[in-house]
Amino acid sequence: MNDELVLSNIRSNLIRQEETIIFALIERAQFSANVKIYEDEGVTVPGYKGSFMMYLLSETEKIHASVRRYTASDEHPFTKHLPDPLLTPMVYDWPIKMTSVNINNKILKTYVKEIIPMICEDKDDGNYGSSAVCDINVLQALSKRIHYGKFVAESKYIVEPAAYDILISNEDKKGLIEKLTDKSVEEKLLKRVALKASTYGQEPDAEDPVFKIEPNIIKKIYSDLIIKMTKEVEYLYLMERGRS
Amino acid sequence: MNDELVLSNIRSNLIRQEETIIFALIERAQFSANVKIYEDEGVTVPGYKGSFMMYLLSETEKIHASVRRYTASDEHPFTKHLPDPLLTPMVYDWPIKMTSVNINNKILKTYVKEIIPMICEDKDDGNYGSSAVCDINVLQALSKRIHYGKFVAESKYIVEPAAYDILISNEDKKGLIEKLTDKSVEEKLLKRVALKASTYGQEPDAEDPVFKIEPNIIKKIYSDLIIKMTKEVEYLYLMERGRS
Repeated sequence: MNDELVLSNIRSNLIRQEETIIFALIERAQFSANVKIYEDEGVTVPGYKGSFMMYLLSETEKIHASVRRYTASDEHPFTKHLPDPLLTPMVYDWPIKMTSVNINNKILKTYVKEIIPMICEDKDDGNYGSSAVCDINVLQALSKRIHYGKFVAESKYIVEPAAYDILISNEDKKGLIEKLTDKSVEEKLLKRVALKASTYGQEPDAEDPVFKIEPNIIKKIYSDLIIKMTKEVEYLYLMERGRS
Repeated sequence: MNDELVLSNIRSNLIRQEETIIFALIERAQFSANVKIYEDEGVTVPGYKGSFMMYLLSETEKIHASVRRYTASDEHPFTKHLPDPLLTPMVYDWPIKMTSVNINNKILKTYVKEIIPMICEDKDDGNYGSSAVCDINVLQALSKRIHYGKFVAESKYIVEPAAYDILISNEDKKGLIEKLTDKSVEEKLLKRVALKASTYGQEPDAEDPVFKIEPNIIKKIYSDLIIKMTKEVEYLYLMERGRS
């Protein structure tokens, strides 16, 4: 079996990504919500019809596409009409099935509508550029983590193909999600995330420690949003896999 | 006095930037050194003569310039020939004197030659894009922190202008650096950085904790490189201030 599909390797990879996500959320939380940057033409960028943040995100993705970021099996762009890579294509390992699954639109919406109000003060501090640069880091980290569900699903599928095939052919979403769920792993994950959030989220030598983000909020972002969307990816991936 | 020049405000700002720098260093350390990305045409980008990392950095700075990042008093670009901002200019507070001081070339060299070998394994893991994206985060964080020396210098100058004026007119570098140095603050800073590095740099629930970067290395990066370069900025700023 490809190393990238060994479940324990996938899990260490997901654990490593927790830091990236928590660090990125804490970085974003130092600025106010600055909702203007998410509204179409809320901060006018001449010649651009969308939001300020989307302008920065789409320009950043163009650069990253030019150095072939989105040819890797664990990377998914948020924007369309990206340029072809400038670099010669690299022969990447592609241990999962090629599918069209990309739920970045949903991730983007969830981030702006639900996560930002949970972690940022509902104010405008004028730090539009800094906030949007942090947004891009969070969004890329979330997208990678959530689409890693493809690796999780593939690794579980290849161990019990027959059991999954029945659920897939019955289009049994509830059954598939149940089969993919490992409650004890999830509980361990949520405990670990809360611990990391409290460790990373405060000044270690402050006399009166104030959390940059309440650990429970980060735990909630994981339980209600990240894990849920990861399962959505796992489900969509298996369904498309079944049809191919 | 402008709030941004109150020394205690500058210090909290610098403390907040420690997280950003430590998080960014830890993120970079998950990949190998991948020295190829720092060598001119080490990873060929068609039509570009420099290194892969510089390609990504210069393209990123073009976008950031277009949203007027480099019109703020605490931001300094690494590359030249940047486009004019697309956005209407914003009237920023500019509490320090306008100078030409920008030591990003030195920061870049120090980062590639000294910091990367301290934090990354001397190997090539092929993660060129991810490494370079992390590099940009570290470099921007270092540049901001180090050029904050301008605020430190200005805030110290305005309290004792006469004492500084003599040293400036004598071009007494050693005397100026001595006058700017507060040993007890520095010692506190280094202790705090080491504590943060050990708190943020390990899996909090690992049975056998392994540091992603040894806390002493981060402390050394601060004492030998960041503080030293910050003082260089403070000195250059005061000298140019004196001539203006």
